[in-house]
Amino acid sequence: MFAPEDLTLDKFLDGRVMIAQPRTGYRAAMDPVLLAAACPARAGQSVLELGCGAGVASLCLAWRVPGLRQAGLELQPAYAQLARDNAARNAAALEVTEGDLTRMPAALRAQSFDHVIANPPYFAASDGTAARDPGRERAQREETPLVDWVRHGFRRLHPGGWLTLIQNADRLADILTAIGTHGGSTVILPIAPRVGRDAGRVIVQTRKGGRGRLRLMAPLILHAAPQHAGDAEDLTDIAQSVLRGGAALPLAH
Amino acid sequence: MFAPEDLTLDKFLDGRVMIAQPRTGYRAAMDPVLLAAACPARAGQSVLELGCGAGVASLCLAWRVPGLRQAGLELQPAYAQLARDNAARNAAALEVTEGDLTRMPAALRAQSFDHVIANPPYFAASDGTAARDPGRERAQREETPLVDWVRHGFRRLHPGGWLTLIQNADRLADILTAIGTHGGSTVILPIAPRVGRDAGRVIVQTRKGGRGRLRLMAPLILHAAPQHAGDAEDLTDIAQSVLRGGAALPLAH
Repeated sequence: MFAPEDLTLDKFLDGRVMIAQPRTGYRAAMDPVLLAAACPARAGQSVLELGCGAGVASLCLAWRVPGLRQAGLELQPAYAQLARDNAARNAAALEVTEGDLTRMPAALRAQSFDHVIANPPYFAASDGTAARDPGRERAQREETPLVDWVRHGFRRLHPGGWLTLIQNADRLADILTAIGTHGGSTVILPIAPRVGRDAGRVIVQTRKGGRGRLRLMAPLILHAAPQHAGDAEDLTDIAQSVLRGGAALPLAH
Repeated sequence: MFAPEDLTLDKFLDGRVMIAQPRTGYRAAMDPVLLAAACPARAGQSVLELGCGAGVASLCLAWRVPGLRQAGLELQPAYAQLARDNAARNAAALEVTEGDLTRMPAALRAQSFDHVIANPPYFAASDGTAARDPGRERAQREETPLVDWVRHGFRRLHPGGWLTLIQNADRLADILTAIGTHGGSTVILPIAPRVGRDAGRVIVQTRKGGRGRLRLMAPLILHAAPQHAGDAEDLTDIAQSVLRGGAALPLAH
């Protein structure tokens, strides 16, 4: 478990959600907030987050949509405990289970959900150099292939339920291939740092058993300035409303 | 074959390329011009177009890049003859072969190319209602699955050669799945009618045996006005330069 002095307490959604996370480990930034914003859950529905880490995505979603039944699965015990603590800190009823998604714990295997969300590790196992911190390493590096995140995500969905993922844009082909015929009505939202730039991330949302056509949306642009503007605040209006205001990020369906 | 009275003579690239095409059949518009602009062929290289129709993409490419060795494959005899006539009309050395890409004619099977380009039919065989004109029907409707266009395209490429496709955006998952491990260094260029709209088409460019990461580019926006502006000319500068001026549309590599 993390010692208190190894944690920082960070503001998400302009302080509406407060998250303790390790000073030196994997630290959540925009991505789980965007993931939460893109999940179309409504009050009374159920949501499972695969690989919930310290709980940022689930707790941002809990803030925006009260009245959800929420579960989280996390491989690393210290992060699972942190997510529980963060849920209590934010008065959210997030049920966190420790375990491996490829050996789904029985408590979760017995359930199905209206929504599954995930922010899987961004680097393929074969790729690049290892992070120095082992917790960060695990959170960022793919030990479980991306295809397993998608397949096990589908298994936990009700028919007609939605799987929403955020990932590095360079994994788009892997995600779409993993979805295959399990999902349909797939929507891709590219997320680009600035106008005219390649997408850095993609949000992919797909419906279990969906039959609709794939849609490739206009990119969400994060920064308004044409170039990196130091520490100056230059979020676009939509990025502000989502990242600061906790607004939903409705995908086209 | 088409009777002369069944043909119209149409301007492409502001009249730099003149194309005879059937009055009532499949009529090329922007897509083959965008496809030609996206093909990174250089003088001295070889290019095969699968399903060349009346030859618009190949002949726009011939105009932009003199000194290519160009071949076209076309299933429908009347369109193959039209492509030959259009090549002669534009003084281009486009070698057109009649045949089915899934039973690649021997003359083409004996060759490999630096580039393969294609604008495959947009509607899946199971989809929607039939076009009234049988030539148009064949040009627009998928009798050959999209995966075959991709696979047979790869077979005709040198190692390291580039396959460039333009397709409806809703087929993006099918294209990327078909590419699978045959290609890499894949670049996706979404093409959207206006800012903020879903992509209508995608250009996908992939390298045989490529190892680079997938890139999802910022969309190419065709029209500047926020709404449909009747017949008023409102192409964006970049769309003008490509569609009228014959400029290249360089994809990020």
